[in-house]
Amino acid sequence: SGLVHIKNPHLDSMEEDILYHLDLGTKTHNLPAMFGDIKFVCVGGSPNRMRVFARFMHKELGLAGDGEDLADICAGTDRYAMYRAGPVLSISHGMGIPSISIMLHELLKLLHHAKCQDVTIIRIGTSGGLGIEPGTVVITDTAVDSFFKPRFEQVVLDDVVVRSTELDKDLVKELLACSKEIPDFLTLIGHTMCTYDFYEGQGRLDGALCSFSSEKKLEYLKRAYNAGVRNIEMESTAFAALCGLCGLKGECFCI
Amino acid sequence: SGLVHIKNPHLDSMEEDILYHLDLGTKTHNLPAMFGDIKFVCVGGSPNRMRVFARFMHKELGLAGDGEDLADICAGTDRYAMYRAGPVLSISHGMGIPSISIMLHELLKLLHHAKCQDVTIIRIGTSGGLGIEPGTVVITDTAVDSFFKPRFEQVVLDDVVVRSTELDKDLVKELLACSKEIPDFLTLIGHTMCTYDFYEGQGRLDGALCSFSSEKKLEYLKRAYNAGVRNIEMESTAFAALCGLCGLKGECFCI
Repeated sequence: SGLVHIKNPHLDSMEEDILYHLDLGTKTHNLPAMFGDIKFVCVGGSPNRMRVFARFMHKELGLAGDGEDLADICAGTDRYAMYRAGPVLSISHGMGIPSISIMLHELLKLLHHAKCQDVTIIRIGTSGGLGIEPGTVVITDTAVDSFFKPRFEQVVLDDVVVRSTELDKDLVKELLACSKEIPDFLTLIGHTMCTYDFYEGQGRLDGALCSFSSEKKLEYLKRAYNAGVRNIEMESTAFAALCGLCGLKGECFCI
Repeated sequence: SGLVHIKNPHLDSMEEDILYHLDLGTKTHNLPAMFGDIKFVCVGGSPNRMRVFARFMHKELGLAGDGEDLADICAGTDRYAMYRAGPVLSISHGMGIPSISIMLHELLKLLHHAKCQDVTIIRIGTSGGLGIEPGTVVITDTAVDSFFKPRFEQVVLDDVVVRSTELDKDLVKELLACSKEIPDFLTLIGHTMCTYDFYEGQGRLDGALCSFSSEKKLEYLKRAYNAGVRNIEMESTAFAALCGLCGLKGECFCI
């Protein structure tokens, strides 16, 4: 049916669903009217960047007006920012797995309540490249953890549940084909490593704490490269796991 | 000496230290002049709330002007927001451990470069109370993980390092004594549980995914209560571990 699959039996019996961190809800907003025609959701860390992206899409799609005054749909909260340009929703998710997870839980319910069909979600983020030219765009085939494993460990109450982090293979090919039409930058397909920490977790030597040598750092990054990792960021495993479980076609596409 | 202890031998040999996510740096900014007299740092998730808090402190301290036009010191980035009111710095950290960790690494280096002495850092956040009156303020004696253990597991490259999450005991007593002077709200001391997830990790029945029953949720939350947990949030273990390792006197104080 192309609908989003919410896997929560409790949700149907709830009188009202409040999407706290988006400042939206089923009783306060007509979600099908507001979002029913959405076909693409683009997400990224920074709220300013996602506003600029929505403006860009507004112009690209030839929509009426100059798109300079797009309103933040989540203006009542500063947790996330959300803009729309035609069938495209542009949302910020902050930094790290916990932050993107909160947004995705509420976005998935939003798409469900709005009865959206055949939605594609793409994370357009920044990342650290590994053995590739600066400015290269990496299309993620598989998101892996710090141990180069294609898994996301989710703590549910006090059980550790392991989830798959595979992304949509057809979408990978489609995005690569699109990139061929734009000769201005390099694009390649690779594994994306997702860490919980920017400094100690990614081998940086300039954090407030650093217990490893430059050699040990390089040895780790070389092992990552040999395992197929081409870039490192902080959200892809949770993104892949949540979208995959809810049947939402998703991809990560980081520069 | 009361200075912040940066535990990174590489830092001394660096010509320049760029605090990327704060849009500050040792060559572009005179950090000792800007921050050398800071004595208190208050951090919380939301940028708007931290601006309001800085204004409140500005008035409480009787500083010149009405404090309405306090400038965001990190205006060049939308990752975090930072304001100062006299010797008090007010900074947002977003949601979750990875987000607060990035900010803390850069803040700790900032305090080090600025040669700040005897700084106290307090997280003033929101949390979910456990078996306590709504609106109660919980002063954290120990931050615990989802398994009620006083530990923070940090992945360093691909090693898992376990760190202590104890907070400053004297500061706990001081804050409790302060709260006695304000009769408007309840304050108590308890353990704070820190999770990586807001929905499945905290026993919520209204996420996009929920695989447990209402009974299983209550059983888990009761076990948490019996282990001494009085509130749940998403940053305290990383906050306690990082501040503790760098010798910064820190406390969490959540409503």
